[in-house]
Formats: sequence, C-alpha cells, structure tokens
Amino acid sequence: MSSAGKLLMGGIEAGGTKFVLAVGYSPIEIIERHEIPTRDPATTLAQASEWFEAQGSINALGIASFGPVELDRSSPLWGHITNTPKPGWENCDVAGYFADRFGVPIGFDTDVNAAALAEYQHGAGKGASSLAYVTVGTGIGGGLVLDGRAVHGAAHPEMGHIFPRRHADDREFEGICPHHGDCLEGLTSGPAIKARWGVSLSELPADHIAHEIIADYLAQLAHSLIAMMAVEIIVFGGGVMRTGGLLERVDRKASEFGARYFPGGSKHKIVSPDLDQNAGLAGALMLAPLV
Amino acid sequence: MSSAGKLLMGGIEAGGTKFVLAVGYSPIEIIERHEIPTRDPATTLAQASEWFEAQGSINALGIASFGPVELDRSSPLWGHITNTPKPGWENCDVAGYFADRFGVPIGFDTDVNAAALAEYQHGAGKGASSLAYVTVGTGIGGGLVLDGRAVHGAAHPEMGHIFPRRHADDREFEGICPHHGDCLEGLTSGPAIKARWGVSLSELPADHIAHEIIADYLAQLAHSLIAMMAVEIIVFGGGVMRTGGLLERVDRKASEFGARYFPGGSKHKIVSPDLDQNAGLAGALMLAPLV
Repeated sequence: MSSAGKLLMGGIEAGGTKFVLAVGYSPIEIIERHEIPTRDPATTLAQASEWFEAQGSINALGIASFGPVELDRSSPLWGHITNTPKPGWENCDVAGYFADRFGVPIGFDTDVNAAALAEYQHGAGKGASSLAYVTVGTGIGGGLVLDGRAVHGAAHPEMGHIFPRRHADDREFEGICPHHGDCLEGLTSGPAIKARWGVSLSELPADHIAHEIIADYLAQLAHSLIAMMAVEIIVFGGGVMRTGGLLERVDRKASEFGARYFPGGSKHKIVSPDLDQNAGLAGALMLAPLV
Repeated sequence: MSSAGKLLMGGIEAGGTKFVLAVGYSPIEIIERHEIPTRDPATTLAQASEWFEAQGSINALGIASFGPVELDRSSPLWGHITNTPKPGWENCDVAGYFADRFGVPIGFDTDVNAAALAEYQHGAGKGASSLAYVTVGTGIGGGLVLDGRAVHGAAHPEMGHIFPRRHADDREFEGICPHHGDCLEGLTSGPAIKARWGVSLSELPADHIAHEIIADYLAQLAHSLIAMMAVEIIVFGGGVMRTGGLLERVDRKASEFGARYFPGGSKHKIVSPDLDQNAGLAGALMLAPLV
C-alpha cells in the first residue's frame, strides 16, 4: 500500500516479553501500532504476520530484536536469534520467517542498536558525532552509533557484561549474572537490585545507599564509553532509569570519574531518551531497507 | 617528485620523545625514513621540514601525533596538539605549520588511531570487521577502527583512563595518573610498574606476581573492548608488551573474563602488532590525503 507515492514500511521491536509492531511511511510517521505478548516462536511470529497482513502491503520490514542475534550477512544464520536462554527461541530464524511470508527486503539488528539509531537520528543525538543507548531493566544492554552507523564489530555489543569496580559499601553481594557473576548486569539490573534489597530501586528511600551504588556502577559504564570511544551522547533508558534522581546521580558520578580530563570536554552528555518508549520501534522502522 | 606517475607522500609519527619521518609512494612502500629527537616545537618542526625538503616535492602529508589533539575539522584549533603537559607543545599548530610550509593537503589524527588504521589495513586486522590498537609504554593509549574508519567520537579515545577492578594482591598502590590515580595508565604503564617494583616488568622473574597483576588489568581493557564494541582484533604493542609471556597472559585472562559468553566467539583475537614498530609511521602515510 502506498499513499501519495510513499512506501509503507513495517517495524518489529521483538522483545522477550512483548513484540511491538508498527507500520508507517517513515520511522517517525507511524500509522498503526500494536503489541502482542511474546509466546513461543510459532504463535508469536504468526500473530505478528497476521497483523501486518491486515495493514495492507508493506514494502520493507525492519526487525529490532532481543539477542544474542546473528548479524553477519554472509552467515547462513543471519537474522536468527541464536543462543538465547529464552525457551523455544534458540536458533529462531526471525528474519527468514518474515522474508518467506512477505517477500520483501528485511533489515535486522539488535533492539538496542535500533534504539541507538533512532535516538541518534531523531532524538537526543541529533547533530552529534556519536551516541550510545543503554537500557537498564531486566538486563543491561547497549547499542552504539558512530558516524551514523550502528556498531557491530565481530557480532554486536554486549556492554552489560563489563566489570565495574565494586563500591565500598557493596562488597559482599556475588551478583546474579549466570556467566560473569558480578558484571554490570549482575550487579545493577532490576533483578540484581531486587536480589540485594528485596524491592525495586524506586521503592527504596532517596537516602538509601542503593541509589549511590547503582549510580556508581552505571557511571563507570558511561566513563568507559567516553574513555574508550569518546562517545558524545549517552542515553540511559529502561525501567530502572525511571527511578527519581538516578540519571542525575549517574551524570554527577561520571563527571567525578572523568575529572575534566577528556578532550571532548562538555560535548559529552548523559541524558534520558528523547523518544521515550518509542526509540526501539522507530529504530526498527529505520532498519527497513527501502531501496 | 613522482616516479612513474606515482605521487610522493610524507608521513610524520610525532611522538613525545622522537619524530619519525618518512616519504613513500604508499603506506607500505617507504623510500626514506628518518628520526629526530623531539625538542621544542620551533626546532623540531623546522628540522622535520628541512628533511622533507631534501627528499623532493611531497604531494600530501599525514601526521600521526601524540595527544591530546583537536580533530574537529570545523574547529579553528584543528590540527593542534592541545592541553599536553609536555613543555612548549601546548596549543601547538602542527598541521598548520606544515600546511604553510608545503602548501599540500594535510591529514591529522592521533598516533594510536594511525597505528590502528595501518594494522587494520596492512597488518593484524586484514579482513577483520574491527580492530583496536593499544600501546602500553610510558602511557597507555588506544586507537580504534570500525568498518574501516578511525573512531573519533566527540574527540578521540583516551582508553588508558578506564578504571580496572583492582587485583587482590595490588590493593595498596595508589596509582600515578595525575588525573585519575589508579586508572589503567596509573596502574599499568611502564612508570607505574617502576613505581611499584623498582624495575621494568621484563626485569622481574617470570613467577613474580607483577606479571599476573599487569596482565589482569590489560585483560580487563580487552574484555571491555569486546563487551562494549565487539572489537574483533585487539593489538597490544608498546615497550611493556615486549615482556616475555605478557601477551599470552593477557589473552588467557581475557578468555577467563569472557567465559565464552560473547556472540563473536572465536573471532575475537588478542595479538601482537604485525607491522612491529612501523604501524604508526605506516598509519601516518595512510592519513596523507591524496586526491
């Protein structure tokens, strides 16, 4: 379907708990939006397809997926979710399913790379050299855009798995990452916070030490993004970041760590998402390869 | 001067202790090479110019400089060494000096980005998606190439200044970085090693705990490069890395940290420079903008 010569695109933000679907004529011109819960692959992918079919003919589809995923176009596994612990989804050929069903070009990347692309192009990163999008929720993930392109490297970033220096008041907790124990995700994700203090961060009083500890670890990620890549804009999103005052604490702590040393100076900024909850979906539409 | 229609390029690897100069028809086809000690800017830049003039007419010049430097082409300070502690060199317009003197196009980047470009194109990174070049010597610096391009971000990487987790047997030393104390450079550079143990790492017996401590910190940088950018090839060069067994220890420790988690799997490699001491100079020649 096209309106006044514009091509209709589909976008999927494929998450572990829900799939968000949209059609639009541009990443920020969304016409219809729909959510379905993530069940087993057969059910979920069929439901998604049926919704798209009801919207008319899409000309291209972009998929922003939870990971890990295969992004190497030369691999037979391109477009698959690979070794996820999520039951049933291991080695699921998400891109292939929709390519078969719709016969249109498919774009595919991680959910966080897509969100980073959207924030870079249409949100907090407009006019900047580079942007990182970090989500702090059930897990911790991050996407990177440098010079307008998402960074893949040998696969894709998994920046929740760096090892922050332990806070003096948080020496005992072993961390909950099944792979790395007390990596950033193992210390700072929503479930890691619950494992230590029994409740979410936003349920703890503002003077509880947990706020300082969590901000310290996230600020170490920000510091590393600045030191290692001179990333200009660092966007922190996700459920944990909706805790009042947390972003400000992270920003303050990262400044302390940097000690005014880095040559990018005041260009480096730590901010909330501009596109709020829509970064991933807008990014999915940006991935749709319109030729 | 041109030979059989080929254009002669100049390259400068501008270091804090010496300037290495070369002319060549390609980055790996060096015709003449010359070293001068780094004195004050007026003396050093004049000596470098005189050498180039004696080689014939260069058509373009690439400069790979110690930093921090200004890389923003839209800044009036582009091509300057900026707030270096090196006496006399603060705010030195290196690129402008040679542009005035030779009237040819000038390329300018950090010494480590140039080395990363050279290793990516002509050395250890041939055919790879991405490469980091880390030098461990008087200081610790790193350059990054992703998708064939050097990463600048808001300025340029300063990856010596991440904060590694302290080793259990190295809790007391405060570190020597004037800005960050016990950051990676403050703990692991040549002078930091001397400050702790009185000698260089290669002078300590192979079973001395210093080898494990230094390898641990450098492996944390490698782990972060893999986690944050999925960097495929990590090249460790510089004086400290000539310590017997160190690269192998770093590689082993980084594997332990990764715990086979990262989706790039065995693509990630930790290696020595392929171009040995010539990466920076070859990279300088690669920066020369031949149109």
